[in-house]
Amino acid sequence: MSGSGTATTPGWAVRKVTVIGCGLIGTSVALALRRAGVRVALADRDPGAVATAVSRGAGVPLEVSASAEPGAASPADVVVIATPPSAVVPMLRWAQERGLGVLYTDVASVKARLLAEAEAAGCDLESFVPGHPMAGRESSGPAAASADLFEGRPWAVCHHPALSPHAVRAVTTLVTACGARVVPIEPEDHDRAAAAVSHAPHVVSSTLAARFAGSGEGALVLAGRGLLDVTRVAGGPSGLWRDILEHNAEPVADVLEAVAGDLNSVVAALRSADPALLGALTDVLGAGNAGRSRIVSSWPGTAGGPHGRRETAAAG
Amino acid sequence: MSGSGTATTPGWAVRKVTVIGCGLIGTSVALALRRAGVRVALADRDPGAVATAVSRGAGVPLEVSASAEPGAASPADVVVIATPPSAVVPMLRWAQERGLGVLYTDVASVKARLLAEAEAAGCDLESFVPGHPMAGRESSGPAAASADLFEGRPWAVCHHPALSPHAVRAVTTLVTACGARVVPIEPEDHDRAAAAVSHAPHVVSSTLAARFAGSGEGALVLAGRGLLDVTRVAGGPSGLWRDILEHNAEPVADVLEAVAGDLNSVVAALRSADPALLGALTDVLGAGNAGRSRIVSSWPGTAGGPHGRRETAAAG
Repeated sequence: MSGSGTATTPGWAVRKVTVIGCGLIGTSVALALRRAGVRVALADRDPGAVATAVSRGAGVPLEVSASAEPGAASPADVVVIATPPSAVVPMLRWAQERGLGVLYTDVASVKARLLAEAEAAGCDLESFVPGHPMAGRESSGPAAASADLFEGRPWAVCHHPALSPHAVRAVTTLVTACGARVVPIEPEDHDRAAAAVSHAPHVVSSTLAARFAGSGEGALVLAGRGLLDVTRVAGGPSGLWRDILEHNAEPVADVLEAVAGDLNSVVAALRSADPALLGALTDVLGAGNAGRSRIVSSWPGTAGGPHGRRETAAAG
Repeated sequence: MSGSGTATTPGWAVRKVTVIGCGLIGTSVALALRRAGVRVALADRDPGAVATAVSRGAGVPLEVSASAEPGAASPADVVVIATPPSAVVPMLRWAQERGLGVLYTDVASVKARLLAEAEAAGCDLESFVPGHPMAGRESSGPAAASADLFEGRPWAVCHHPALSPHAVRAVTTLVTACGARVVPIEPEDHDRAAAAVSHAPHVVSSTLAARFAGSGEGALVLAGRGLLDVTRVAGGPSGLWRDILEHNAEPVADVLEAVAGDLNSVVAALRSADPALLGALTDVLGAGNAGRSRIVSSWPGTAGGPHGRRETAAAG
């Protein structure tokens, strides 16, 4: 057969992968793995998504026997579940019941609750490696996918007590074959970090963009690049984002409450004639400067970032 | 003398301009006007800023006689006051007392209050054209200035009852010579629009970035481009921004109050077990999508924007 290449790191070879969910992330994983010489089978509840992914060279359609007999076809080394959060555990159960894979991983933006749901649903946890690639684009769907999507990006891989070391090594191989950088992290720590760097910013960006939802032409006549930047992530698909936020509710609420608190302090300062309250402005702006500096210096590619390539801060 | 070029539109020639304030905006105005062949004199309370601007080819140092006698040197066609908001009216008075210009304009981010301050301070309003170029960069200061900063950007020019038509035509000439697009607008309308598209987004971006002000390395290990985008404007100079916010207090407070209200609805929905409240998530995310679409479609250079160049929405 063509493409009998193998993505390997010492300990585990990944020759055959099944991707369930042919959206932006799933199709991009498939394209990256195909480029690495891995055989990929694709599934999605939408046959059109499968067809688009296949037409882009992401793999072949998965053939699943009508019966629930495991072992009817040889299992994939890894099954990647690339669906929205609320579909992950149902698909994990479905796939495990049919023995579609030796190992399983997901790419959803939330981790602790899915792991708890998987346990409650009776899924096999030893073979399930919760994961989350930190990558994306403004567009969604298989047509927007790219084999380069994960290049140099962090990909969270979450340990849990039942997990086998073999499973982690195999998923590490897969992540590395996609060009990403494995970040080992506990599920709860992942969720707090994701809330702060991704989920809460998405909501905040949306509330700013929402101010223009019903506005006329004139409201935007003075708009500049700053508004484009701050509202960029507000264009993301709302159904998926509602699912993500519901699955990471408390950590996201914590961040949003802190942001709203700062905003309310600024509002009080601006509406009051009391100069003593105006210190709130200085506090928020100064903390914003400090936070921005930390964000820029942690970004790979800026001076001081973990990958050290020297670029100007302004490029970030 | 060298550089006897003239920026002209029918009605008024601008041959000689004095720029007071050699920061990013003032020095960029000077560089753009020099490129258009206009003679430029530069002033700043910081001699180092003047020296940097001069070394970049932005003009020559302004020579002001020690006495307050007007007419001691021939006045500039236009004096551009490019200082932070709280210094505009003091500089306008100082410049008018010395007859430094025939006409005066400013570039501050706030308009209505400055006009009221100018009137209260006894400035001559007939020759004062409040203005505001909507342009900027992450960096500040004369070293970051560019003659291209205003290319294709909107530049608000505010009418008020005392203003002479000659004054407006001359400033229009200057704005056009800088490559910008004149946007005639009333001062109060300008301030509400600027609050929505620039000032409030700056505060919101700062409150998000502030969450990382004291954080360790681990908090940013999963950070992606989305966080970089949403916090980009939070790097702006805090002293200048406090000045801007104080001068546009009520319009900015209005926008921030609406944003905080949306965030509080989302927090309540996330913390509650009540599915009825979860509609708030859908509302905010949907309004965010709608607002983002309007923002993108109004941006010059995207399909449907006022300048009609066809680029993909994702490029915004």
